[in-house]
Amino acid sequence: MNDIIQQLTQVLAERKTADPDKSYVAGLYAKGLDQILKKVGEEAAETIIAAKNENKEQLIYEMADLWFHSMVLLIHQGIEPQSILNELERRFGLSGLEEKAQRK
Amino acid sequence: MNDIIQQLTQVLAERKTADPDKSYVAGLYAKGLDQILKKVGEEAAETIIAAKNENKEQLIYEMADLWFHSMVLLIHQGIEPQSILNELERRFGLSGLEEKAQRK
Amino acid sequence: MNDIIQQLTQVLAERKTADPDKSYVAGLYAKGLDQILKKVGEEAAETIIAAKNENKEQLIYEMADLWFHSMVLLIHQGIEPQSILNELERRFGLSGLEEKAQRK
Amino acid sequence: MNDIIQQLTQVLAERKTADPDKSYVAGLYAKGLDQILKKVGEEAAETIIAAKNENKEQLIYEMADLWFHSMVLLIHQGIEPQSILNELERRFGLSGLEEKAQRK
Repeated sequence: MNDIIQQLTQVLAERKTADPDKSYVAGLYAKGLDQILKKVGEEAAETIIAAKNENKEQLIYEMADLWFHSMVLLIHQGIEPQSILNELERRFGLSGLEEKAQRK
Repeated sequence: MNDIIQQLTQVLAERKTADPDKSYVAGLYAKGLDQILKKVGEEAAETIIAAKNENKEQLIYEMADLWFHSMVLLIHQGIEPQSILNELERRFGLSGLEEKAQRK
Repeated sequence: MNDIIQQLTQVLAERKTADPDKSYVAGLYAKGLDQILKKVGEEAAETIIAAKNENKEQLIYEMADLWFHSMVLLIHQGIEPQSILNELERRFGLSGLEEKAQRK
Repeated sequence: MNDIIQQLTQVLAERKTADPDKSYVAGLYAKGLDQILKKVGEEAAETIIAAKNENKEQLIYEMADLWFHSMVLLIHQGIEPQSILNELERRFGLSGLEEKAQRK
Protein backbone atom coordinates (compact mmCIF):
# COMPACT_ATOMS: atom_id res chain seq x y z
CA MET A 1 0.00 0.00 0.00
CA ASN A 2 1.11 3.56 -0.69
CA ASP A 3 2.17 5.22 2.53
CA ILE A 4 1.73 8.74 1.17
CA ILE A 5 -1.77 8.11 -0.21
CA GLN A 6 -2.64 6.24 2.99
CA GLN A 7 -1.35 9.08 5.17
CA LEU A 8 -3.00 11.79 3.10
CA THR A 9 -6.27 9.83 3.23
CA GLN A 10 -6.01 9.89 7.03
CA VAL A 11 -5.26 13.62 7.13
CA LEU A 12 -8.19 14.39 4.77
CA ALA A 13 -10.56 12.19 6.79
CA GLU A 14 -9.57 13.97 10.00
CA ARG A 15 -10.32 17.36 8.40
CA LYS A 16 -14.00 16.28 8.18
CA THR A 17 -14.39 17.39 11.79
CA ALA A 18 -12.05 20.41 11.58
CA ASP A 19 -13.12 24.05 11.69
CA PRO A 20 -14.01 25.22 8.13
CA ASP A 21 -12.58 28.64 8.98
CA LYS A 22 -9.20 27.23 9.92
CA SER A 23 -8.72 24.40 7.41
CA TYR A 24 -8.85 24.75 3.60
CA VAL A 25 -10.06 21.14 3.26
CA ALA A 26 -12.72 21.51 5.99
CA GLY A 27 -13.84 24.65 4.15
CA LEU A 28 -14.18 22.68 0.90
CA TYR A 29 -16.23 19.95 2.62
CA ALA A 30 -18.49 22.64 4.08
CA LYS A 31 -19.02 24.29 0.68
CA GLY A 32 -20.14 20.92 -0.65
CA LEU A 33 -19.87 18.71 -3.74
CA ASP A 34 -20.30 21.36 -6.47
CA GLN A 35 -17.47 23.49 -5.11
CA ILE A 36 -15.16 20.46 -4.86
CA LEU A 37 -16.04 19.46 -8.45
CA LYS A 38 -15.37 23.00 -9.63
CA LYS A 39 -11.87 22.67 -8.16
CA VAL A 40 -11.35 19.29 -9.90
CA GLY A 41 -12.31 20.89 -13.25
CA GLU A 42 -10.09 23.89 -12.59
CA GLU A 43 -7.07 21.78 -11.67
CA ALA A 44 -7.57 19.57 -14.75
CA ALA A 45 -7.49 22.70 -16.94
CA GLU A 46 -4.35 23.95 -15.15
CA THR A 47 -2.72 20.53 -15.64
CA ILE A 48 -3.39 20.74 -19.39
CA ILE A 49 -2.01 24.30 -19.53
CA ALA A 50 1.12 23.31 -17.56
CA ALA A 51 1.76 20.33 -19.84
CA LYS A 52 1.47 22.54 -22.93
CA ASN A 53 4.00 24.91 -21.33
CA GLU A 54 6.43 21.93 -21.31
CA ASN A 55 7.23 23.02 -17.77
CA LYS A 56 7.90 19.93 -15.64
CA GLU A 57 7.93 21.76 -12.32
CA GLN A 58 4.59 23.43 -13.09
CA LEU A 59 3.11 20.13 -14.29
CA ILE A 60 4.12 18.34 -11.08
CA TYR A 61 2.59 21.17 -9.05
CA GLU A 62 -0.72 21.20 -10.95
CA MET A 63 -1.00 17.41 -11.12
CA ALA A 64 -0.46 17.27 -7.34
CA ASP A 65 -3.32 19.80 -7.03
CA LEU A 66 -5.50 17.61 -9.29
CA TRP A 67 -4.76 14.41 -7.33
CA PHE A 68 -5.22 16.24 -4.04
CA HIS A 69 -8.66 17.57 -4.97
CA SER A 70 -9.51 14.15 -6.44
CA MET A 71 -8.85 12.66 -3.00
CA VAL A 72 -10.91 15.38 -1.28
CA LEU A 73 -13.76 14.50 -3.68
CA LEU A 74 -13.48 10.78 -2.98
CA ILE A 75 -13.49 11.22 0.78
CA HIS A 76 -16.39 13.69 0.58
CA GLN A 77 -18.33 11.01 -1.34
CA GLY A 78 -17.43 8.31 1.18
CA ILE A 79 -14.95 6.50 -1.07
CA GLU A 80 -11.50 5.34 0.06
CA PRO A 81 -8.80 6.66 -2.33
CA GLN A 82 -7.31 3.16 -2.04
CA SER A 83 -10.34 1.99 -4.10
CA ILE A 84 -8.91 3.82 -7.12
CA LEU A 85 -5.58 2.04 -6.73
CA ASN A 86 -7.41 -1.27 -6.33
CA GLU A 87 -9.37 -0.57 -9.53
CA LEU A 88 -6.13 0.18 -11.40
CA GLU A 89 -4.59 -3.01 -9.97
CA ARG A 90 -7.63 -5.02 -11.08
CA ARG A 91 -7.51 -3.60 -14.62
CA PHE A 92 -3.85 -4.17 -15.13
CA GLY A 93 -3.58 -7.43 -13.28
CA LEU A 94 -0.75 -5.88 -11.28
CA SER A 95 -1.12 -8.28 -8.38
CA GLY A 96 -0.77 -11.01 -10.99
CA LEU A 97 2.43 -9.38 -12.24
CA GLU A 98 3.65 -9.14 -8.67
CA GLU A 99 2.78 -12.78 -8.07
CA LYS A 100 4.72 -13.82 -11.13
CA ALA A 101 7.67 -11.72 -9.98
CA GLN A 102 7.58 -13.38 -6.57
CA ARG A 103 7.55 -16.84 -8.13
CA LYS A 104 10.87 -16.21 -9.85
CA MET B 1 6.17 3.64 -1.64
CA ASN B 2 2.92 2.63 -3.32
CA ASP B 3 3.33 -0.77 -4.92
CA ILE B 4 0.40 -0.24 -7.31
CA ILE B 5 1.59 3.16 -8.54
CA GLN B 6 5.12 1.81 -8.73
CA GLN B 7 4.04 -1.26 -10.71
CA LEU B 8 1.77 0.75 -13.01
CA THR B 9 4.63 3.20 -13.62
CA GLN B 10 6.78 0.26 -14.71
CA VAL B 11 4.05 -1.11 -17.01
CA LEU B 12 3.46 2.32 -18.59
CA ALA B 13 7.20 2.90 -19.07
CA GLU B 14 7.54 -0.49 -20.81
CA ARG B 15 4.72 0.43 -23.22
CA LYS B 16 6.95 3.21 -24.58
CA THR B 17 8.61 0.61 -26.78
CA ALA B 18 5.46 -1.43 -27.48
CA ASP B 19 3.66 -1.64 -30.84
CA PRO B 20 1.14 1.27 -31.07
CA ASP B 21 -1.21 -1.03 -32.97
CA LYS B 22 -1.29 -3.62 -30.19
CA SER B 23 -1.20 -1.47 -27.03
CA TYR B 24 -3.69 1.31 -26.15
CA VAL B 25 -0.99 3.14 -24.16
CA ALA B 26 1.64 2.81 -26.91
CA GLY B 27 -1.01 4.16 -29.29
CA LEU B 28 -1.53 7.19 -27.01
CA TYR B 29 2.22 7.87 -26.83
CA ALA B 30 2.38 7.67 -30.63
CA LYS B 31 -0.51 10.13 -31.06
CA GLY B 32 1.39 12.58 -28.85
CA LEU B 33 0.83 15.13 -26.12
CA ASP B 34 -2.34 16.81 -27.41
CA GLN B 35 -4.20 13.51 -27.69
CA ILE B 36 -3.14 12.49 -24.16
CA LEU B 37 -4.25 15.89 -22.80
CA LYS B 38 -7.59 15.54 -24.60
CA LYS B 39 -8.08 12.26 -22.70
CA VAL B 40 -7.18 13.95 -19.37
CA GLY B 41 -9.79 16.64 -20.04
CA GLU B 42 -12.37 14.07 -21.10
CA GLU B 43 -11.82 11.90 -18.01
CA ALA B 44 -12.02 14.96 -15.71
CA ALA B 45 -15.41 15.79 -17.24
CA GLU B 46 -16.57 12.18 -16.81
CA THR B 47 -15.39 12.23 -13.19
CA ILE B 48 -17.50 15.35 -12.53
CA ILE B 49 -20.53 13.76 -14.23
CA ALA B 50 -20.12 10.50 -12.26
CA ALA B 51 -19.87 12.41 -8.95
CA LYS B 52 -23.05 14.36 -9.76
CA ASN B 53 -24.78 11.02 -10.46
CA GLU B 54 -23.95 10.09 -6.84
CA ASN B 55 -22.85 6.74 -8.29
CA LYS B 56 -19.86 5.45 -6.31
CA GLU B 57 -19.04 2.61 -8.69
CA GLN B 58 -19.08 4.98 -11.69
CA LEU B 59 -16.98 7.54 -9.79
CA ILE B 60 -14.33 4.94 -8.90
CA TYR B 61 -14.24 3.85 -12.55
CA GLU B 62 -13.89 7.38 -13.98
CA MET B 63 -11.41 8.52 -11.33
CA ALA B 64 -9.28 5.45 -12.11
CA ASP B 65 -9.42 6.53 -15.78
CA LEU B 66 -8.37 10.07 -14.79
CA TRP B 67 -5.45 8.89 -12.66
CA PHE B 68 -4.42 6.38 -15.31
CA HIS B 69 -4.30 8.99 -18.07
CA SER B 70 -2.56 11.37 -15.63
CA MET B 71 0.18 8.78 -15.26
CA VAL B 72 0.39 8.27 -19.04
CA LEU B 73 0.80 12.05 -19.35
CA LEU B 74 3.52 12.19 -16.69
CA ILE B 75 5.53 9.36 -18.24
CA HIS B 76 5.11 10.85 -21.73
CA GLN B 77 6.58 14.09 -20.35
CA GLY B 78 9.47 12.28 -18.65
CA ILE B 79 8.15 12.70 -15.10
CA GLU B 80 8.01 9.90 -12.53
CA PRO B 81 4.47 9.59 -11.08
CA GLN B 82 6.23 9.19 -7.74
CA SER B 83 7.13 12.92 -8.05
CA ILE B 84 3.46 13.78 -7.54
CA LEU B 85 3.32 11.73 -4.35
CA ASN B 86 6.56 13.37 -3.17
CA GLU B 87 5.06 16.81 -3.85
CA LEU B 88 1.95 15.89 -1.81
CA GLU B 89 4.19 14.57 0.97
CA ARG B 90 6.20 17.78 0.96
CA ARG B 91 3.09 19.97 1.12
CA PHE B 92 1.44 18.10 3.94
CA GLY B 93 4.56 17.29 5.89
CA LEU B 94 3.41 13.68 5.90
CA SER B 95 6.82 12.27 6.63
CA GLY B 96 6.89 14.73 9.52
CA LEU B 97 3.52 13.49 10.73
CA GLU B 98 4.76 9.93 10.49
CA GLU B 99 7.85 10.84 12.45
CA LYS B 100 5.78 12.48 15.17
CA ALA B 101 3.48 9.45 15.29
CA GLN B 102 6.48 7.15 15.67
CA ARG B 103 7.81 9.23 18.58
CA LYS B 104 4.66 8.67 20.63
CA MET C 1 -30.85 38.91 -33.30
CA ASN C 2 -28.08 36.67 -34.66
CA ASP C 3 -29.24 34.99 -37.84
CA ILE C 4 -26.66 32.20 -37.60
CA ILE C 5 -27.47 31.34 -33.98
CA GLN C 6 -31.18 31.62 -34.79
CA GLN C 7 -30.86 29.34 -37.82
CA LEU C 8 -28.66 26.81 -36.03
CA THR C 9 -31.17 26.77 -33.14
CA GLN C 10 -33.87 25.89 -35.65
CA VAL C 11 -31.76 23.12 -37.25
CA LEU C 12 -30.87 21.65 -33.81
CA ALA C 13 -34.52 21.76 -32.69
CA GLU C 14 -35.61 19.94 -35.85
CA ARG C 15 -33.06 17.19 -35.16
CA LYS C 16 -35.02 16.30 -32.00
CA THR C 17 -37.36 14.25 -34.19
CA ALA C 18 -34.68 12.97 -36.61
CA ASP C 19 -33.42 9.38 -36.80
CA PRO C 20 -30.55 8.91 -34.28
CA ASP C 21 -28.88 6.56 -36.75
CA LYS C 22 -28.81 9.14 -39.51
CA SER C 23 -28.13 12.42 -37.62
CA TYR C 24 -25.15 13.04 -35.30
CA VAL C 25 -27.21 15.50 -33.26
CA ALA C 26 -30.22 13.19 -33.00
CA GLY C 27 -27.77 10.51 -31.88
CA LEU C 28 -26.46 12.81 -29.13
CA TYR C 29 -30.00 13.60 -27.92
CA ALA C 30 -30.74 9.86 -27.82
CA LYS C 31 -27.59 9.13 -25.78
CA GLY C 32 -28.75 11.71 -23.25
CA LEU C 33 -27.43 14.47 -21.02
CA ASP C 34 -24.26 12.78 -19.71
CA GLN C 35 -23.00 12.06 -23.23
CA ILE C 36 -23.69 15.66 -24.33
CA LEU C 37 -21.87 17.00 -21.24
CA LYS C 38 -18.93 14.70 -21.92
CA LYS C 39 -18.68 16.33 -25.37
CA VAL C 40 -18.82 19.84 -23.82
CA GLY C 41 -15.95 18.91 -21.48
CA GLU C 42 -13.97 17.35 -24.33
CA GLU C 43 -14.39 20.38 -26.61
CA ALA C 44 -13.41 22.75 -23.79
CA ALA C 45 -10.18 20.77 -23.34
CA GLU C 46 -9.54 20.83 -27.09
CA THR C 47 -10.16 24.60 -27.14
CA ILE C 48 -7.52 25.08 -24.42
CA ILE C 49 -5.05 22.85 -26.30
CA ALA C 50 -5.66 24.70 -29.60
CA ALA C 51 -5.14 28.09 -27.91
CA LYS C 52 -1.85 26.91 -26.38
CA ASN C 53 -0.78 25.78 -29.87
CA GLU C 54 -1.20 29.43 -30.93
CA ASN C 55 -2.99 28.01 -33.97
CA LYS C 56 -5.82 30.36 -34.96
CA GLU C 57 -7.40 28.00 -37.48
CA GLN C 58 -7.45 25.16 -34.93
CA LEU C 59 -8.82 27.47 -32.24
CA ILE C 60 -11.68 28.63 -34.48
CA TYR C 61 -12.46 24.98 -35.29
CA GLU C 62 -12.46 23.81 -31.67
CA MET C 63 -14.34 26.86 -30.36
CA ALA C 64 -17.01 26.26 -33.03
CA ASP C 65 -17.24 22.67 -31.71
CA LEU C 66 -17.58 23.98 -28.16
CA TRP C 67 -20.31 26.48 -29.06
CA PHE C 68 -22.07 23.89 -31.19
CA HIS C 69 -22.20 21.30 -28.39
CA SER C 70 -23.19 24.11 -25.97
CA MET C 71 -26.21 24.76 -28.17
CA VAL C 72 -27.05 21.04 -28.36
CA LEU C 73 -26.92 20.97 -24.54
CA LEU C 74 -29.16 24.02 -24.21
CA ILE C 75 -31.78 22.66 -26.60
CA HIS C 76 -31.66 19.22 -24.94
CA GLN C 77 -32.39 20.97 -21.62
CA GLY C 78 -35.24 23.00 -23.11
CA ILE C 79 -33.37 26.33 -23.14
CA GLU C 80 -33.30 28.69 -26.12
CA PRO C 81 -29.67 29.56 -27.04
CA GLN C 82 -30.97 33.12 -27.42
CA SER C 83 -31.34 33.14 -23.59
CA ILE C 84 -27.55 33.12 -23.30
CA LEU C 85 -27.26 36.15 -25.58
CA ASN C 86 -30.01 37.89 -23.58
CA GLU C 87 -28.10 37.17 -20.35
CA LEU C 88 -24.92 38.64 -21.85
CA GLU C 89 -26.91 41.67 -23.05
CA ARG C 90 -28.41 42.13 -19.57
CA ARG C 91 -25.00 41.92 -17.88
CA PHE C 92 -23.28 44.36 -20.16
CA GLY C 93 -26.18 46.70 -20.66
CA LEU C 94 -25.60 46.37 -24.38
CA SER C 95 -29.06 47.51 -25.34
CA GLY C 96 -28.27 50.55 -23.20
CA LEU C 97 -25.05 51.09 -25.09
CA GLU C 98 -26.93 50.76 -28.35
CA GLU C 99 -29.52 53.26 -27.15
CA LYS C 100 -26.80 55.74 -26.24
CA ALA C 101 -25.15 55.24 -29.63
CA GLN C 102 -28.44 55.87 -31.38
CA ARG C 103 -28.94 59.07 -29.43
CA LYS C 104 -25.71 60.55 -30.79
CA MET D 1 -25.19 39.33 -37.92
CA ASN D 2 -25.82 38.98 -34.19
CA ASP D 3 -26.15 42.41 -32.66
CA ILE D 4 -25.37 41.17 -29.14
CA ILE D 5 -22.24 39.26 -30.16
CA GLN D 6 -21.22 42.19 -32.36
CA GLN D 7 -21.72 44.69 -29.54
CA LEU D 8 -19.99 42.51 -26.96
CA THR D 9 -17.07 42.06 -29.37
CA GLN D 10 -16.78 45.85 -29.56
CA VAL D 11 -16.91 46.24 -25.77
CA LEU D 12 -14.28 43.51 -25.26
CA ALA D 13 -12.01 45.02 -27.93
CA GLU D 14 -12.25 48.44 -26.24
CA ARG D 15 -11.20 46.91 -22.91
CA LYS D 16 -7.82 46.07 -24.47
CA THR D 17 -6.75 49.63 -23.70
CA ALA D 18 -8.61 49.94 -20.36
CA ASP D 19 -6.96 50.08 -16.93
CA PRO D 20 -6.43 46.48 -15.65
CA ASP D 21 -7.18 47.69 -12.12
CA LYS D 22 -10.59 49.08 -13.09
CA SER D 23 -11.86 46.55 -15.64
CA TYR D 24 -12.22 42.77 -15.04
CA VAL D 25 -11.62 42.08 -18.74
CA ALA D 26 -8.59 44.38 -18.96
CA GLY D 27 -7.29 42.55 -15.88
CA LEU D 28 -7.71 39.20 -17.66
CA TYR D 29 -5.87 40.44 -20.78
CA ALA D 30 -3.05 41.68 -18.54
CA LYS D 31 -2.76 38.31 -16.75
CA GLY D 32 -2.38 36.66 -20.14
CA LEU D 33 -3.41 33.56 -22.06
CA ASP D 34 -2.99 30.93 -19.32
CA GLN D 35 -5.22 32.81 -16.90
CA ILE D 36 -7.92 33.27 -19.58
CA LEU D 37 -7.74 29.53 -20.44
CA LYS D 38 -8.03 28.65 -16.77
CA LYS D 39 -11.28 30.63 -16.69
CA VAL D 40 -12.55 28.81 -19.83
CA GLY D 41 -11.85 25.45 -18.15
CA GLU D 42 -13.45 26.58 -14.91
CA GLU D 43 -16.62 27.84 -16.63
CA ALA D 44 -16.90 24.61 -18.67
CA ALA D 45 -16.82 22.62 -15.40
CA GLU D 46 -19.43 24.92 -13.86
CA THR D 47 -21.61 24.53 -16.96
CA ILE D 48 -21.49 20.73 -16.58
CA ILE D 49 -22.32 20.98 -12.85
CA ALA D 50 -25.24 23.36 -13.51
CA ALA D 51 -26.66 21.05 -16.20
CA LYS D 52 -26.47 18.06 -13.83
CA ASN D 53 -28.34 20.15 -11.24
CA GLU D 54 -31.16 20.39 -13.82
CA ASN D 55 -31.27 24.08 -12.89
CA LYS D 56 -32.10 26.12 -16.01
CA GLU D 57 -31.37 29.50 -14.45
CA GLN D 58 -27.97 28.31 -13.21
CA LEU D 59 -27.19 26.73 -16.60
CA ILE D 60 -28.00 29.97 -18.46
CA TYR D 61 -25.78 31.87 -16.03
CA GLU D 62 -22.80 29.50 -16.33
CA MET D 63 -23.13 29.10 -20.10
CA ALA D 64 -23.14 32.90 -20.43
CA ASP D 65 -19.91 32.89 -18.38
CA LEU D 66 -18.44 30.23 -20.69
CA TRP D 67 -19.36 32.09 -23.88
CA PHE D 68 -18.16 35.38 -22.38
CA HIS D 69 -14.73 34.00 -21.48
CA SER D 70 -14.64 32.25 -24.88
CA MET D 71 -15.01 35.67 -26.50
CA VAL D 72 -12.34 37.18 -24.24
CA LEU D 73 -10.03 34.33 -25.34
CA LEU D 74 -10.78 34.88 -29.03
CA ILE D 75 -10.16 38.62 -28.86
CA HIS D 76 -6.97 38.09 -26.81
CA GLN D 77 -5.76 35.77 -29.60
CA GLY D 78 -6.68 38.25 -32.32
CA ILE D 79 -9.71 36.32 -33.60
CA GLU D 80 -13.08 37.92 -34.32
CA PRO D 81 -15.87 36.03 -32.46
CA GLN D 82 -17.81 36.38 -35.71
CA SER D 83 -15.33 33.82 -37.16
CA ILE D 84 -16.89 31.15 -34.93
CA LEU D 85 -20.36 31.95 -36.24
CA ASN D 86 -19.01 31.91 -39.81
CA GLU D 87 -17.46 28.46 -39.17
CA LEU D 88 -20.80 27.16 -37.83
CA GLU D 89 -22.56 28.65 -40.85
CA ARG D 90 -20.08 26.97 -43.20
CA ARG D 91 -20.47 23.58 -41.52
CA PHE D 92 -24.24 23.59 -41.52
CA GLY D 93 -24.71 25.31 -44.85
CA LEU D 94 -26.95 27.79 -43.06
CA SER D 95 -26.54 30.47 -45.67
CA GLY D 96 -27.64 27.82 -48.14
CA LEU D 97 -30.69 27.10 -46.01
CA GLU D 98 -31.40 30.81 -45.84
CA GLU D 99 -31.02 31.13 -49.58
CA LYS D 100 -33.46 28.30 -50.16
CA ALA D 101 -35.89 29.88 -47.71
CA GLN D 102 -35.69 33.19 -49.56
CA ARG D 103 -36.39 31.50 -52.89
CA LYS D 104 -39.73 30.17 -51.65
